[in-house]
Amino acid sequence: MGHIYQRRVQFADTDAAGVVHFSRLLCYAEEAEHDLLRRVGIPLLGDGGWPRVHVDCDYLAPVRPGESVEVAIAPEEIGRSSVGWVFSVSTSGAEVARGRMKTVYVDEQGSPAEIRPGWRRWLESARGQG
Amino acid sequence: MGHIYQRRVQFADTDAAGVVHFSRLLCYAEEAEHDLLRRVGIPLLGDGGWPRVHVDCDYLAPVRPGESVEVAIAPEEIGRSSVGWVFSVSTSGAEVARGRMKTVYVDEQGSPAEIRPGWRRWLESARGQG
Amino acid sequence: MGHIYQRRVQFADTDAAGVVHFSRLLCYAEEAEHDLLRRVGIPLLGDGGWPRVHVDCDYLAPVRPGESVEVAIAPEEIGRSSVGWVFSVSTSGAEVARGRMKTVYVDEQGSPAEIRPGWRRWLESARGQG
Amino acid sequence: MGHIYQRRVQFADTDAAGVVHFSRLLCYAEEAEHDLLRRVGIPLLGDGGWPRVHVDCDYLAPVRPGESVEVAIAPEEIGRSSVGWVFSVSTSGAEVARGRMKTVYVDEQGSPAEIRPGWRRWLESARGQG
Repeated sequence: MGHIYQRRVQFADTDAAGVVHFSRLLCYAEEAEHDLLRRVGIPLLGDGGWPRVHVDCDYLAPVRPGESVEVAIAPEEIGRSSVGWVFSVSTSGAEVARGRMKTVYVDEQGSPAEIRPGWRRWLESARGQG
Repeated sequence: MGHIYQRRVQFADTDAAGVVHFSRLLCYAEEAEHDLLRRVGIPLLGDGGWPRVHVDCDYLAPVRPGESVEVAIAPEEIGRSSVGWVFSVSTSGAEVARGRMKTVYVDEQGSPAEIRPGWRRWLESARGQG
Repeated sequence: MGHIYQRRVQFADTDAAGVVHFSRLLCYAEEAEHDLLRRVGIPLLGDGGWPRVHVDCDYLAPVRPGESVEVAIAPEEIGRSSVGWVFSVSTSGAEVARGRMKTVYVDEQGSPAEIRPGWRRWLESARGQG
Repeated sequence: MGHIYQRRVQFADTDAAGVVHFSRLLCYAEEAEHDLLRRVGIPLLGDGGWPRVHVDCDYLAPVRPGESVEVAIAPEEIGRSSVGWVFSVSTSGAEVARGRMKTVYVDEQGSPAEIRPGWRRWLESARGQG
């Protein structure tokens, strides 16, 4: 599926249960999305931005400090202003979390704006990968 | 709905878009849940714990630094080992986010365990509030 | 000493060693500073801001999930543009951390600017408290 | 100086001032230290741990979302139980922060314990690098 992003679990990502805090795994998914945007040339900020209007995630197994994490992410639905992302997080080849996020492209006033044609093409090509 | 928890948005909760980061709003919901557990006398850790196996959230409006946030939370479904929570986050009386979380009671080995009868009664009474 | 700020340790503040992560205790100190600024009427953002140019902290004892934390903070040195803060963090009456921070008032371009006379008076009165 | 660790600034690391939050830069320094420990074979947790008893940091310039950060870190002082670390954070070759941290090796009861001879040699060799 789509784009692959890798990072290591950091100690500050864990909690007193000895595993990665659920909110940090969602940050990993956001990092993967931003890594993809950076590679295809879509700016995160500037004359607008990409607020998140939805997230959901199922947590399948705990993730430990120091583990290597791989996030696979792809734009599943590309609307007029919005992108629906699907992601899967794995460690050592086993899926530990999976979910969806929806972001909306907004202009400087914070109103939803049409995704530029060039960006749409890049997102569509990212969807096709993998 | 159920239990009401209040906190202020802290500067460290915000991001470069000038609003609360989406992952921190989910931490506010977890804080509200833990505040309720503390009040009814259910320990967070000890001989087991309450890992989160699902979260979903819709973000309706941005939340700014320094704002006062109110989280309403209630146990919607109480299973053998799991609790399905529903939450709503507001600022100045307007809803800014709403969602669900599912936690599972596990024993010291991390296996799902039956929620103790006393805890179940407390959770059921929390469901009935409001 | 100066201003007293109270908050509870949240689960997301802890790490896999079972205690509050060192970086989060510094956020508690920042929260206490911002709480003081809010009370005396000094805005955090707007036409400028208050970046931090120095922090130091000694950690004296671990802090556990769910504990109540008290931060005492005071402006120790008030310069032309800068404020030197001293803080002490306690749980159950015992000091668990102490340190200093230095913030600088900057204008919209990010250049150090003179602290306004009214703000200076408020900060000086906060220094005198306790 | 010593060990070099690289990472990218993530959006969740920034705050409403549009730059990396001061507490997150200290987490980058901790990540660099843990990266070094991992490479020389010293476990972070297990039969004890490495709590931090001191940090200090001077912030020289703001760090923006998406920037590449390089942390140079070295064990400056190796005591019976403690390690004094010195670190420097740079972006695009310019130093943006520098500071020190002190960690203490503790046993399972949390009492300071003697650093094992093998670990001491590894730390001393890391000191000599660069």
